Amino acid sequence: MSLPSLRLKSNSDRRIKGGHLWVFSNEVDIAQTPLTALEAGQEVQLETASGKLLGLATVSPDNLICARLHSRDAAHGLDKSLLVHRLKVALSLREKLFDKPFYRLVYGESDLLPGVVVDRFGDYLVVQITTPGMERVRSEIIDALVQVLKPAGILFKNDGAARKAEKLASYVEVAFGEVPERVALEENGVRFEAPVHTGQKTGWFYDHRMNRARLAPYVQGKRVLDLYSYIGGWGVQAAVFGASEVMCVDSSAAALDLVEHNAALNGVADKMAVVEGDVMDALRELKGAGEKFDVVIADPPAFIKKRKDIRNGENAYRRLNEQAMRLLNRDGILVSASCSMHLAENSLRDILLAASRHLDRHLVIAERGFQGADHPLHPAIPETGYIKSYFCRVLPV
Amino acid sequence: MSLPSLRLKSNSDRRIKGGHLWVFSNEVDIAQTPLTALEAGQEVQLETASGKLLGLATVSPDNLICARLHSRDAAHGLDKSLLVHRLKVALSLREKLFDKPFYRLVYGESDLLPGVVVDRFGDYLVVQITTPGMERVRSEIIDALVQVLKPAGILFKNDGAARKAEKLASYVEVAFGEVPERVALEENGVRFEAPVHTGQKTGWFYDHRMNRARLAPYVQGKRVLDLYSYIGGWGVQAAVFGASEVMCVDSSAAALDLVEHNAALNGVADKMAVVEGDVMDALRELKGAGEKFDVVIADPPAFIKKRKDIRNGENAYRRLNEQAMRLLNRDGILVSASCSMHLAENSLRDILLAASRHLDRHLVIAERGFQGADHPLHPAIPETGYIKSYFCRVLPV
Repeated sequence: MSLPSLRLKSNSDRRIKGGHLWVFSNEVDIAQTPLTALEAGQEVQLETASGKLLGLATVSPDNLICARLHSRDAAHGLDKSLLVHRLKVALSLREKLFDKPFYRLVYGESDLLPGVVVDRFGDYLVVQITTPGMERVRSEIIDALVQVLKPAGILFKNDGAARKAEKLASYVEVAFGEVPERVALEENGVRFEAPVHTGQKTGWFYDHRMNRARLAPYVQGKRVLDLYSYIGGWGVQAAVFGASEVMCVDSSAAALDLVEHNAALNGVADKMAVVEGDVMDALRELKGAGEKFDVVIADPPAFIKKRKDIRNGENAYRRLNEQAMRLLNRDGILVSASCSMHLAENSLRDILLAASRHLDRHLVIAERGFQGADHPLHPAIPETGYIKSYFCRVLPV
Repeated sequence: MSLPSLRLKSNSDRRIKGGHLWVFSNEVDIAQTPLTALEAGQEVQLETASGKLLGLATVSPDNLICARLHSRDAAHGLDKSLLVHRLKVALSLREKLFDKPFYRLVYGESDLLPGVVVDRFGDYLVVQITTPGMERVRSEIIDALVQVLKPAGILFKNDGAARKAEKLASYVEVAFGEVPERVALEENGVRFEAPVHTGQKTGWFYDHRMNRARLAPYVQGKRVLDLYSYIGGWGVQAAVFGASEVMCVDSSAAALDLVEHNAALNGVADKMAVVEGDVMDALRELKGAGEKFDVVIADPPAFIKKRKDIRNGENAYRRLNEQAMRLLNRDGILVSASCSMHLAENSLRDILLAASRHLDRHLVIAERGFQGADHPLHPAIPETGYIKSYFCRVLPV
């Protein structure tokens, strides 16, 4: 079976040769190989201007990122066999790193499966597909997952914003076996249940695992405030690690119900208080009431979703972190995190510095953290790195 | 006692107000307050152009960095009382983080003690002073350390290059009690002895502690190569964490003797091989001999000591990492570290990517690491952050 070609303009092959996997629509020689002649999701042979094969890709003809490479070898087309191979390679890293089967098993481009994310919750898999190329091989993905992992159930949580841009339908569907409303997981020795059908993203954020693990020495016997707590990833771990008291703030009553459930699962329900409401409002009220905390965790949803939001988003991070800092005791710890890919690490650092100076405090960054090793960074694709966290010590000057 | 003034030009106070602690000589209003009238090490009141107090500093009149702030409060001059306070604040962070007394206790600017580094090895302290301001209060530093820590011995390891630039004498001297030739320490549960009188820097590099801890899951049952091993910080830990075999390469016979000694201390001498020689030569020979490793650790001394060396230094990192990558087995791990302050994190990432593409490999960065929390980053002073490490998975494409 011979695949259609997608030919690049001259000198447009350099980034691909340098390791990148994306083709932008302005790089295609559309006179030779019109994008309009291709169907969304179709597999193509990607070629240099002189016709040399670069690898195999699938296309999104209407999109700025119009093709994504999944293989540099013409012999390895996007079929079940390639998927099985990629899954095994991805699995071997995670099995080396983690002694229990709770992790991001597939992280798109970094695992050479652009457009696919798989989170593993023991026997249950939650899959997100974001490209027409991967949607086209949806059933092969299921088959490959079943062969490699023998799961009890596979859920497609295909309702993200990225799909809209690709004109893919939004749906949440059990694609194999059965998947309960909530699935169990363990992170850093702490037990949780995550609402995989209805929760945020895949239902859980494995990306902060290593940063949450670092909470342990900072929270012993301390009073902790967890902002944008969702279902308690940080807060419940802080309680289990030895915090004396934890307050979780979130706008979702359903998420807070799960904070309490997850706290109870670990026998720390008595340490846990939940506050439903807007976080900025809650910060004002806590300040007004004279409340103080030893550790404040600020891990908000992405305030910067698009490049054009950078300025407003940075202001939002500044307001949040400054208000959070105001609630700290005299020698306090601010854990400031961001999942905004468009927020540079140094920008967050500068925001924290500026906020501390505005309050006349001396702030140092004791620890910097990133996404865990089950979210490897593809060094040619900066977009694959998005998590940052700073553990800040905030002192009087 | 009134201190002489050091007055800044208008608008030159902004960086100091923003949190920085350094004054550059071109920022001083030398018509009002000539630097030449001040003695090296003298304490001054730092003022804005309009005479408003910014804080207290000590001066290096002949230096580009001509003053360093140690206090923003005129009431807190550089005396034993301030030193005791700063030490207690520094100690409280380390005691929270570490259950044993082995760490960097004072990290210069980040602990508001510019020009002072103290590494703690249980009852022994190794101190490095790099500014005339701190040299002037040398005996107060000793008194303060004795009061706060009750050490058995204090060693001044005052022989670094930074002292030369400040025209300070180079010396190594036991300043209090007794300090044996080698002192014991423990890192990540592994025992070491460090040659504090004659070794590199303070004798040990606590800065990579957390990165070395991350070796554990990657080295189980693996063959490991540790380049620029010094006394075995990485290599011996790899062996204790479960590596099947570790080869340490270093140009110093004395360092390699200590690798063997430290391996024996932990009962892993039988897993350890040492190779004395130039690392690049050794890499060529290992390649020639067809040797392969599952994990290669490349943590060289700073290849970039000054800004002007960036280009040559980046080439040296490129050569080292590419040759290291060539020795990896099919699914191998390269741990690539740098302590060059002038090597940007993203530059090292790009170097690793370029090397991997040159060898036609698929490289992803599983983990990124920085200096540990006993080396806090001062967010206004990027120079306080220098360590980076990347744990790279290197696969065939």
